[in-house]
Amino acid sequence: MLTFMTVRELYELVVSGDTMEIDQIEYVQCEGWIRTNRNNGSVGFIELNDGTYFKSIQLVYSSSLKDFDAISKYLTGTAIQVTGKFVLTPEAKQPFELQVTEILLEGACDNEYPLQKKRHSFEYLREIGHLRPRTNTFNAVFRIRSVLAMAIHEFFQNQGFVYVNAPLITGNDAEGAGEVFTVTTRKDDNYEEDFFGKHASLTVSGQLQAEAFALAFRDVYTFGPTFRAENSNTTTHASEFWMIEPEMAFADLLDDMDLIEDMVKSCIDYVLDNCPEEMKFFNEFVDKTLLERLEKVRTSDFVRMPYTEAIDHLLKADVKFENKVEWGMDLNSEHERYICEKIVNGPVFLTDYPKDIKAFYMRLNDDGKTVAACDLLVPSVGELVGGSQREERLDVLRQRMKEMGVDEKGLDWYLDLRRYGGCKHAGFGLGFERFIMYVTGMQNIRDVIPFARTPRNLNF
Amino acid sequence: MLTFMTVRELYELVVSGDTMEIDQIEYVQCEGWIRTNRNNGSVGFIELNDGTYFKSIQLVYSSSLKDFDAISKYLTGTAIQVTGKFVLTPEAKQPFELQVTEILLEGACDNEYPLQKKRHSFEYLREIGHLRPRTNTFNAVFRIRSVLAMAIHEFFQNQGFVYVNAPLITGNDAEGAGEVFTVTTRKDDNYEEDFFGKHASLTVSGQLQAEAFALAFRDVYTFGPTFRAENSNTTTHASEFWMIEPEMAFADLLDDMDLIEDMVKSCIDYVLDNCPEEMKFFNEFVDKTLLERLEKVRTSDFVRMPYTEAIDHLLKADVKFENKVEWGMDLNSEHERYICEKIVNGPVFLTDYPKDIKAFYMRLNDDGKTVAACDLLVPSVGELVGGSQREERLDVLRQRMKEMGVDEKGLDWYLDLRRYGGCKHAGFGLGFERFIMYVTGMQNIRDVIPFARTPRNLNF
Repeated sequence: MLTFMTVRELYELVVSGDTMEIDQIEYVQCEGWIRTNRNNGSVGFIELNDGTYFKSIQLVYSSSLKDFDAISKYLTGTAIQVTGKFVLTPEAKQPFELQVTEILLEGACDNEYPLQKKRHSFEYLREIGHLRPRTNTFNAVFRIRSVLAMAIHEFFQNQGFVYVNAPLITGNDAEGAGEVFTVTTRKDDNYEEDFFGKHASLTVSGQLQAEAFALAFRDVYTFGPTFRAENSNTTTHASEFWMIEPEMAFADLLDDMDLIEDMVKSCIDYVLDNCPEEMKFFNEFVDKTLLERLEKVRTSDFVRMPYTEAIDHLLKADVKFENKVEWGMDLNSEHERYICEKIVNGPVFLTDYPKDIKAFYMRLNDDGKTVAACDLLVPSVGELVGGSQREERLDVLRQRMKEMGVDEKGLDWYLDLRRYGGCKHAGFGLGFERFIMYVTGMQNIRDVIPFARTPRNLNF
Repeated sequence: MLTFMTVRELYELVVSGDTMEIDQIEYVQCEGWIRTNRNNGSVGFIELNDGTYFKSIQLVYSSSLKDFDAISKYLTGTAIQVTGKFVLTPEAKQPFELQVTEILLEGACDNEYPLQKKRHSFEYLREIGHLRPRTNTFNAVFRIRSVLAMAIHEFFQNQGFVYVNAPLITGNDAEGAGEVFTVTTRKDDNYEEDFFGKHASLTVSGQLQAEAFALAFRDVYTFGPTFRAENSNTTTHASEFWMIEPEMAFADLLDDMDLIEDMVKSCIDYVLDNCPEEMKFFNEFVDKTLLERLEKVRTSDFVRMPYTEAIDHLLKADVKFENKVEWGMDLNSEHERYICEKIVNGPVFLTDYPKDIKAFYMRLNDDGKTVAACDLLVPSVGELVGGSQREERLDVLRQRMKEMGVDEKGLDWYLDLRRYGGCKHAGFGLGFERFIMYVTGMQNIRDVIPFARTPRNLNF
């Protein structure tokens, strides 16, 4: 009997140990790409990978095949279809192999193929972004990216959250989160004559629009691209990245933190359940503390600590910080790590930040000095999520916009949300790439985006 | 006993007929927005909607409440929290009501609130895009949008397809699908000095990048925004819309059509299963043939007909077409509808189009005149999906690019995919908004996008 199976299906079957099922497999047909091909004149070995799994299967072909000579010349990267007898090999390195009865050429490979057996640096692989998903590491990275996206959708949809596609092209220059890209069909700056009749830019956040939908649907989330025209070349900045921005009506900061904690834990569980082999791979080759770190987060209660208390800890700390600590400052990475790794030793929400270092839409606390914001800090990464209760009081919101120099023009509709049944509401933003880095241990944002866009880098 | 429940949970419970569960509900707490509020001096009635469902629940409050007077003045749009006794009312219009014990004000509503009881035109509602999701129709539209997105993710993920986020900002001006938006940080056209060091634009398709990933992962799909700077004001064009672009290695045109047919049917099933009430609503108020039409598609075998045969039917047709029929022409809507509605009377794939009217990357057939393309036509909408087998032969592809004036510059990486194990592969593109329109019966693309972008229209 001949069965068509992918490499993943074969591995999962063998790992399952379901002997009844396994015994039924006689001849198997696979398609894939050759990773290595060697022979000793009478018997040859091909490692075949079909992309469904980061592991390859071993094909054994003998000189009794009529096209043995042709097959033995197939280069690394060649696409083939293979039929072979399925044989368990419990004593070999591979748990099974295919003893080839036929190999058909599906697509030849040039001998200049850059992905030969040797190990390549991540830097080099970025230059061949169209080929790097064929390597074990990037097969695992981009599969985790896909599975984590699904984890997020399932988490929210299972609780009745409505998925909202916030617009990417926006006329709201007032959102005020750094530099933006202009979107135009002109070669000059006469935006009145431009496609939209005014200046248009790429969005930096879908939150304001998500608020409009939360005040209609109660619970919503966005999951889409956002953009920053920031000219910084770091391992954590990209010009184009994806954000998840949930928003809940009738919710306050405590509800918000509950949701964040649930989401982070649920997504980690999902990835561990659905990609155990990929996660083991990352733990072995990328970050040896990964599984331990995730297990700890998954099972811990996230601590909640007001910013003011964190400042007290920092002032009392027996450590020399590079940046001077005082109430009102924005915390630097060194401070966040001290709180997270030394004081709490686990995930911590810092809450109630000084109003002057946070966005205009965050709800002013009764003290008049702080806002109902929370940042989730996690060991070894720092800030993972930023959220807040939103200012639902029209007069307070307008006052804050005035103080912070945010123009009301173009945001009338946003103020309307406070005029017409504007109840308390809260939400947060999670950078998808940062989450992938956190879950895989990968250290550069360029290595978790299929084709990353950064300053002066626009290939593929 | 007091239970917190959303309006959807209450309706679903009552519809379930689970009397054990229903009997346990004594007092209920809800939050939401007032749709109407009337009273006769001794007893008042509020229709409350919380956005989780397009139906409202009825609150009955009596003058024995100490704040009866204040409550009776709450305007349409006001946000409240209500506690009340849950009572089944099988003889009334509503299947149940809450007899109010307490109402708390969560957010007042201005008396200028545009969404009063009367029916508004879709045109008017577009002007208040931040409020229209609060209406029954748009609550249903955007819930279907969310559920259909999930249907698509589940369909592909359940079969092991890897979700790929193709880049939005691109330097490939060669893709050649109409006019594009420029992305810049400058006010002039000195792109060498621009952010990316060259001209950048918003993508019109993620297909080419999806091909790179398919030739690594076997089966992948994109689901993300794409852009067209086309200056056309029609009911089916938007400047920003979402596309689903699956791509499969080791697949030909027949596999492609099988996948399209499965996907369309599976997504319709999913929406009918998960949103039965919303779909009934659309069938009643938006398109009275909707459910019948979807049921027919769901259960029919999609016909497959070569373009050349379609032309023969059109030439023989007993109908006067506005546009003259001849082999080699692009079919107009009138032709597509004739084939789909008169000849086939159901969904039909037209295949093997003349090469000159299709894109450079479609695989040339052995006749040298046609390409391995398919368009899925469905009754009353026309083209829903366009797919093709891709040209995997490097020499043929380069010849086609030359013929069609597509510059190889910047597409070297795409040609590499044919140099290094470029096996047969196929994929398709589905416009998400067109699919939503098809599934809901909505007639204008502006009404299925949260905040639509069209020429000279960039509000919210």
